[in-house]
Formats: sequence, C-alpha cells, structure tokens
Amino acid sequence: MAKSKFEYVKQFESEDKCLPNCWIVVRIDGKSFHRFSDVHHFVKPNDDRALNLMTKAAQCVMEEYKDIVLSYGQSDEYSFVFKKNTSVFNRRGSKIMSNIVSYFSSCYVFYWSRFFNVQPLQYPPSFDSRVVLYPSDKNLRDYLSWRQADCHINNLYNTCFWKLVQDKGFTPAQSQERLKGTMSSDKNELLYQEFNTNYNNLPDVYRKGSILIPSKEKAVESKPMNSTYPNTKEPHRGSVSFSNSLDHGTKMNPKIDVLHVDLIGEKFWEEHSNILTSR
Amino acid sequence: MAKSKFEYVKQFESEDKCLPNCWIVVRIDGKSFHRFSDVHHFVKPNDDRALNLMTKAAQCVMEEYKDIVLSYGQSDEYSFVFKKNTSVFNRRGSKIMSNIVSYFSSCYVFYWSRFFNVQPLQYPPSFDSRVVLYPSDKNLRDYLSWRQADCHINNLYNTCFWKLVQDKGFTPAQSQERLKGTMSSDKNELLYQEFNTNYNNLPDVYRKGSILIPSKEKAVESKPMNSTYPNTKEPHRGSVSFSNSLDHGTKMNPKIDVLHVDLIGEKFWEEHSNILTSR
Amino acid sequence: MAKSKFEYVKQFESEDKCLPNCWIVVRIDGKSFHRFSDVHHFVKPNDDRALNLMTKAAQCVMEEYKDIVLSYGQSDEYSFVFKKNTSVFNRRGSKIMSNIVSYFSSCYVFYWSRFFNVQPLQYPPSFDSRVVLYPSDKNLRDYLSWRQADCHINNLYNTCFWKLVQDKGFTPAQSQERLKGTMSSDKNELLYQEFNTNYNNLPDVYRKGSILIPSKEKAVESKPMNSTYPNTKEPHRGSVSFSNSLDHGTKMNPKIDVLHVDLIGEKFWEEHSNILTSR
Amino acid sequence: MAKSKFEYVKQFESEDKCLPNCWIVVRIDGKSFHRFSDVHHFVKPNDDRALNLMTKAAQCVMEEYKDIVLSYGQSDEYSFVFKKNTSVFNRRGSKIMSNIVSYFSSCYVFYWSRFFNVQPLQYPPSFDSRVVLYPSDKNLRDYLSWRQADCHINNLYNTCFWKLVQDKGFTPAQSQERLKGTMSSDKNELLYQEFNTNYNNLPDVYRKGSILIPSKEKAVESKPMNSTYPNTKEPHRGSVSFSNSLDHGTKMNPKIDVLHVDLIGEKFWEEHSNILTSR
Repeated sequence: MAKSKFEYVKQFESEDKCLPNCWIVVRIDGKSFHRFSDVHHFVKPNDDRALNLMTKAAQCVMEEYKDIVLSYGQSDEYSFVFKKNTSVFNRRGSKIMSNIVSYFSSCYVFYWSRFFNVQPLQYPPSFDSRVVLYPSDKNLRDYLSWRQADCHINNLYNTCFWKLVQDKGFTPAQSQERLKGTMSSDKNELLYQEFNTNYNNLPDVYRKGSILIPSKEKAVESKPMNSTYPNTKEPHRGSVSFSNSLDHGTKMNPKIDVLHVDLIGEKFWEEHSNILTSR
Repeated sequence: MAKSKFEYVKQFESEDKCLPNCWIVVRIDGKSFHRFSDVHHFVKPNDDRALNLMTKAAQCVMEEYKDIVLSYGQSDEYSFVFKKNTSVFNRRGSKIMSNIVSYFSSCYVFYWSRFFNVQPLQYPPSFDSRVVLYPSDKNLRDYLSWRQADCHINNLYNTCFWKLVQDKGFTPAQSQERLKGTMSSDKNELLYQEFNTNYNNLPDVYRKGSILIPSKEKAVESKPMNSTYPNTKEPHRGSVSFSNSLDHGTKMNPKIDVLHVDLIGEKFWEEHSNILTSR
Repeated sequence: MAKSKFEYVKQFESEDKCLPNCWIVVRIDGKSFHRFSDVHHFVKPNDDRALNLMTKAAQCVMEEYKDIVLSYGQSDEYSFVFKKNTSVFNRRGSKIMSNIVSYFSSCYVFYWSRFFNVQPLQYPPSFDSRVVLYPSDKNLRDYLSWRQADCHINNLYNTCFWKLVQDKGFTPAQSQERLKGTMSSDKNELLYQEFNTNYNNLPDVYRKGSILIPSKEKAVESKPMNSTYPNTKEPHRGSVSFSNSLDHGTKMNPKIDVLHVDLIGEKFWEEHSNILTSR
Repeated sequence: MAKSKFEYVKQFESEDKCLPNCWIVVRIDGKSFHRFSDVHHFVKPNDDRALNLMTKAAQCVMEEYKDIVLSYGQSDEYSFVFKKNTSVFNRRGSKIMSNIVSYFSSCYVFYWSRFFNVQPLQYPPSFDSRVVLYPSDKNLRDYLSWRQADCHINNLYNTCFWKLVQDKGFTPAQSQERLKGTMSSDKNELLYQEFNTNYNNLPDVYRKGSILIPSKEKAVESKPMNSTYPNTKEPHRGSVSFSNSLDHGTKMNPKIDVLHVDLIGEKFWEEHSNILTSR
C-alpha cells in the first residue's frame, strides 16, 4: 500500500522544544470544577477528600516523572516543577504537558473511590494543562509565591463566604454583597467577631496548599495509608506514604513528602536548598 | 497580601494560537501500551474490549466537543478533527490538546469496567497528545489516509505474527524473522496458504480502524448499548449508541456513528461530503 | 581551543518552520518614514521618486528570490508572496524575513541616487518585516485586497489633506479637523467641488499601488530604464525593465511587470490565473 | 470601501514575544560573502576596510538601540546583546531581528564608500538574522566565548591557508590538503617555522574580533574619525569615535568603545561587570 504517498503529512507537525536551562512548570487546572464539586457534594469551602485525591494524583505523577523537583497544589489545580536541565521527552512542550495531564486525570479517576468511598464518580472530570518557562530561580519562586498567595486570598474569601451561608443563612448573593470591597483584615475580623474563628488556626492545608517534594530520606517500601493531612499545625511535614498496591512494576516507591507550609518567605528555601540546585 | 508583586510571572506564559482556517487535528497516543496490553492480557493481535473502550472514550470526547467533525482510531491511538473555523478555546493549542487528552484518559479509566468487566485495571494508563494543523482538505484527507494505511500495514503484520506464534508455536523472534522483508502480497499469501485465512474477511474494525462521525439523523435519546462492532462486513455502519446513564446534565445525547470503512478512496468523502464543508 | 565546550549554546536556537502548504507573505514596512519623508522633502501626498525606489528595491528582491509570485507595494510598505510550496531557506521564518528585509534595505540605499539624483540620502533608513501565513487562496486574495483597500483609503484622505494645506493654506490641524468624520463620498465631493479634481483620474499608482509579477513573456536582456509609472491610466501594464548594470553575475534578468490595477475584483485573477496555481 | 471585510486577515499574524528575563541575542550573518569578498577584492585573510565597515554599521545599530549592552563581531557576522529586561519592540522577536538586520544592511551600504573609497560597491549585499534567548549570564558568556573561539579557529586556519597560497604559491586545493588534520599547535608551528610569523603578534582585531560596548565615560560630541583599530596590541581599547556628520537629529552621539580583547576569561567580565548587571 502506498504508505509513503501520505507520509509527507508528518512534516506539518511542528517542534516545540522548551528553551534549555529554564525551569519547566506544568500547571494543570480542573475544567468546570464548580459544577463538578456541586454534583459530588464537596464540603465547602474545603473538601478533604477532594484535596487528598488531588494530592494522591500529583504524588503518582511525581513518582512517574523523577525530574519533578517540587509540586504545588491548591483547590483544583496543581503545578509541577521540572528541574532546569531535564531532558524529559527531549523537552518537547506538547509531550510534557499532555503526558502529565493525561496521567493526572487517569489517576484522579483511578483513585476516586479510595477517597470518596461509596460516593460514586458521576462522570469523568477533565483538566487542562500548560507549560510555562521560568529562566531564573527568583522567577520560579515568584511563580510559586503567586500560586500560594492566590490560595490564601481565595481561601480567606471562601471561608467567610461559606460561614455566612452555612452559619448565618445568607444567600450566596447576600454573602457576596457582604464581602464586596472588604480587605484581608476585614475578613479576618469578620471571622473572629462573628464566628469566633481565628483564621490562622484553620488547617494549614487550606491556607497554604500542598507542597510535594521527594523525601530526603532514602525511599522506603510503601506502607498502608495513614492520616494524610494533620489538622494541627505541627508537624508541618506530613510524611505521607499512600499505599499503592497497584503500583506497576518493581520500581521502588520513592517517598514523597507533603508539606503545608509557607513557601513565600526564605525559610522554606533555606531548609530545602537542594531544590533550586538540582541538576 | 502582596499579590500583585508576584503576578508579573503570568507574562511568561506564551500564546499558542492555531493558525486560522486550518483543520486542527489532535492525535492522542497510548504511552507504553505494549506493556499495558501485556499486563491486562489483551487478546492478540486485536482485543475487542480494548478497541471498544478506546472508541467509547473517543465518543465521549466528541459528545463534549461539538466542533469535532470526525475522529479516527486504531490500536491505542485516536485522532480528532476539529472543523476549520472552530473557535474552541479560542484556538489555543495547549488548551485544546490538554483538555482532549485529559478527558479521553479520564473516560478510559471511568469506563474500563464496562468493557473489561471483572478484570481490574491494574494501574492508571496515560496518553500523549499533539496538535497538527492542515491547511487544505487534501492535506487532511492524506493525514487520515496515512493513519488508515498505517492501521492496515500494522494489522496485516500483527495478524501474521500472532498466527505464527499462536498456531505454529513460533517464538516471537522466529516469527519476526519469518516475516522479515515480506511484502503485503507475501503476507496475504502466508495467511491463505498456511492458515487458510482470507485477510479480507477479517473484521473491518481490525483492518480499517474506526471512524466516528456525528450521525446525520437527528440525535435521539440514548438506548442501552447493543453490539458495537459487527464482525461481518455488512452493514458498515455500526450505528452505535452506547448507553451513558451517567451522562452529566440534561443535554441531548447526540448520536455518533461508528464506521469501519475505507476512507482513502473517494467513496467515503462523497457519501459524507458535509464533513469537509462544515463551517 | 575548547570549542566544543561552548557549542552547546547552539541548542538555544529554536526552529521556526512555516507550516507547509500555506502562502508565505513577507511584509516590510518603513520605520519612522514620516520623519524620513520630511527630512528628504518627499512631495506630498505622493513622491514618484520614493515610490519608484521602493518598487526598484522590490524588483531586486523578486529577481533574487524566484519563488516570489507576486509583490504588492504602496507608500512605504511592500508585501512579497512566496508560492505555497516554496522551500526557500527550508521555510524557516526568521531566515526568510531577515534576508528579504536586509536585501530590500540594502537595495533601497544602493539605488537611492538613481531616483533622487543629487539629493543626498541623509541617513540610513530601516524597515521591519514579518512573516504571515495564509492557508487558502481566498485568504491570500483577501490579504492583498486589505492592503489595496488601505492604499485607497489613505490616498484619498492624504489627497484631500494636502490639497487643503497646499492649495487653501490650511494648517495641518485645520485640515485634519475639516476631514474628521467624512465618508469616502464626502472626500470625493470635496476634491471635485473645491479643487476641480476627479479622484478617479489621479494616477493609478497612487490609487492602486504597485503589483509586481514575473512577466509571462520570456525574460529578455535588460534595457535602459524608461519611464516607470505611466501617469495616464492606460496601459495599466508598465512593462518595466530597470537597467541594472551592476547586476551581479551572469544570470538572466527576468522581466518583472509592474501593474497599477485593481486586484480586489475577479478580473486581475482571471487574467493572471497562473499566480494562484503556481507550484 | 469595505475595509472591514478584509481586515480579518490580521488575525493570521502570530505573536512571537521573547520569554521575559532572558538575554536577547540578535546575530546577523553575511549572505554569500565568499562571493561578495571576491568580487570586491577583499584582502585575505583579513580586510581592514571590510572589518571596519562591519564595525561602523554595528556601532550605528548600537547608537540607535540603546538597550544593546554589548556587540561582538568577526568576519561577516555581528551579534547584538540586548539587556535581559529590554522592552524594545515589546520583545517581539520578528520586530527586533528585522529592524536590526535592516538597519545594519542599510548602514553597510550607506558607509561603504567611507571605507572603500573609490572602489565601488558592485551590488547590494544582504545579511540574515536570528534571535536567540539565553536565560543565564553563564549561557550568554558561553555564547560569546563560542563566537570568539570560532573567530580564533577560523583566523588561525585562514592565516595559514593564505600564507601558503600567497607566499608559497600553493593552489587553494594544495593549501587545504596541507592543513588537513592539523591541530592548533601544528598551525602555530607552521607559521613560525615556515613564515617566521608569531601568530600571537598578529593584530588583536583579527585574532579576537571586535567587542563594542557603550563607553563608561560620559558621551561626548563626536570627533573626526581617527584610526580605528590599533595594529599594536596596546592599548586594547580603541576608543573609537567615528564622525557621523549625517547623524539624524540632535541626539547625543554616545561613545562606543571598540575592544579587541579576550572575553572568554574572567578578566573582561571583571573589568566590565556592569554589562551583566544592566537592568
């Protein structure tokens, strides 16, 4: 069969290599998760099951792609940071972003029931993904700071919003109206005065999101899942080891640490200085 | 919180709009499916369950993205053709390819048990995806012809290969050696002489792959799944309507026709002339 | 010397191949030509010397790059259309656009004195360039129509503007004010009523710009330059053959026809049907 | 006139913004300069007139584009380094590369006679250009080292080649044969033994190329051109100030220093530490 006659169409594919010596960040983002969270009765403003499932899927991605030096997640998004000089998929942007988002999505569905138990997944969710390059360490840190600041801002708002709705019987519209134009300090005050809630005592995972990094300790055999996210502030390190009895093949299950700490300040980067120097 | 201070990092995202007035093709491809098919005991050379699951996932994608005018699948790959002037995701390549591959992967896992029954999915599979642009109708047809020719070539080879292994007790190496340098005609002859098999009588789905197009008939309410792929050559049109009781929302379930016919020649395009003229 | 140690930096260069089977248009545009035309006392609204020099430079470009099937120029811009399947510079966008604009600029300075005689070039001018791809013939024609419509609109405005300034003593500000909000018909009326000028009788080169195409007749030896742009409307074809005694090498000097005709309607494309079918 | 009907074609233009926070390097390169140098009787292996003209054009480019912090030239090429955070042309790659190469070409022709006197320019030369991004200072330095190492390697070879041809009567083929497989040390030895030439005593401009940087001293009024390139090794700094009586406008003529020194080692970067820290 005249295969060669058609093969010229391969020339229409374009190369999309990522510039060398840049941090490659892949961010995945839930599509229409407002509706998805309604259909699946997510607890508002934060659903532990959903957050844990996101983190489980991210952990799987990190186990599969060893060049990811850090992942950061909040709400229905996760960012994966590949080391600057990774040669994964020969640095082809499409390959990287598509494989990551595909595997993440696949894991999300695969592990759904582990986190949601008898509550069935009503329909297959999807995520988009993008690749962004950051030339300098400062740019990368600022990117992560941007996402964590976003987590804080949204969570503070959502916490207030749902308190008004759930505890005071506000309609969503009333709640929105009440919060319009308020500053962070106003919202903190609102929580304290009206709901006797100190925002800073809320679980770190809600306020800081989740940072995943390969454990410095030697990887060990996986153990049965234990409590994932400590609700107390200490210790920050959630040393998670989800059991993954379905893990394919014989490869070692590297331990991934899950942290819910500030990464905007210097402290995190001083304690984990190896992240930015990874080759 | 100094959100604005970090927001400059958004400028590092690059635009990747697809050239207007070109056919946008998204091809997804199974990652390491050789291993995946081994682990899951796929029947060789073709596993109906796996092919049907691929097609089910593709059908879901088409139901979600109405601007897809045709999809073509074979083995562990599927191509989705968006109409030339689609404005889906504002024609942003990353958005398109990531959403498609994410939803496809998600569906694949979600519907696994419907096709594989009690055989469990051992681990989450993944797919890559790419976007390719084709300026002319001829280019697009040549692309699809390329994939269908590829289907034919691989299937003829695999059919011979597995006959030698399964019926004659060849080792894979011996089988490969036996087929080295053979032409299509040699392989047809081999099947006929040694296995009393007329290649052209094998199921169309194996030899031609699967073409999915929106049904010309008005969309109807979905019915219980019936036999998907006729093993006889007639009728070509498998008028499939997988039941999708989990279908989210109230939107109509458009019927997608599944065909296993030649698309290299003129006939298909004459019968479905609306595909290339879709606006 | 450790050359290899540094050569890795070549990997930072990115490929930028133009999508196959698209018309490649390179448009060059004068940089700060408002000032340039002032400094060099260009006749307003149209300076024949400047227009002829632009066309001379464009002609040189076409003689050098045989895959250009048509060029269109007006004011301080020129567009070069490469045939759809050109493999010039392996279709690398940067190579194409940089070589064209470099050679055009070089020619502009080189031939300056031939058109401006004793009036010296005061400083080296520059042009920018860009590559745009057009998938279909219709898109390409619409592109050229866009440029010619632009020529008409600007020329009508400028003709009125300078009549008011030159013949009526308006200041530029007064002239601008007078024309604000006027329609094409108003401007035609203004010219006719106040300046006894029938816009349609103005030279074609001003109203239509310049279309350059390879002569259908066999290329002949170049002859001494004769009048380039007929001021009368007929004949449209200016069968130009600039003498180019400095022409490098022995290659034949292909004749380039210079036309000042409408290319928005069907007539031009019917008479020159070979342009769109060039392979 | 239906302008709007055609304006949709603007959407086919694609954005090509350079990644922020990267060094932008534009390299221009003579097209077919082998032939150009033959036609214009360039002195081999190095023609001072041609080198000076290249540097003059590069100087003009730097005077026009203040965000260029360093240029490096050798033979028929020049590299222009824009500061990391330049917003020139909104960082659009096409705009940057086309304007630079256009202006360079224009200047080359414009100033030809100043350097070649009565010897006329036979035909308009052209250059190509490309944009390359370097994320880190080390990458940028390695890029420049690559070009300077290239200068050295080529010059050593060419010096030997032309000595054999000019002093020994070798044919080019014989000369090439003689040098095949030789190492740097062999070539140095050849020059010393057979031509009594110490390679290291050859003019710096030939061995090191030309580095252009804005003078640290305050820009002064331009003076008549004096000798550009000292043939003695000291001082390295050629404090050039080409007279540019045609300089357009009133803007100050910033002094550009021309150096012919090593930039591979640390010394240059220590003495000019401001280059890499330019904001």
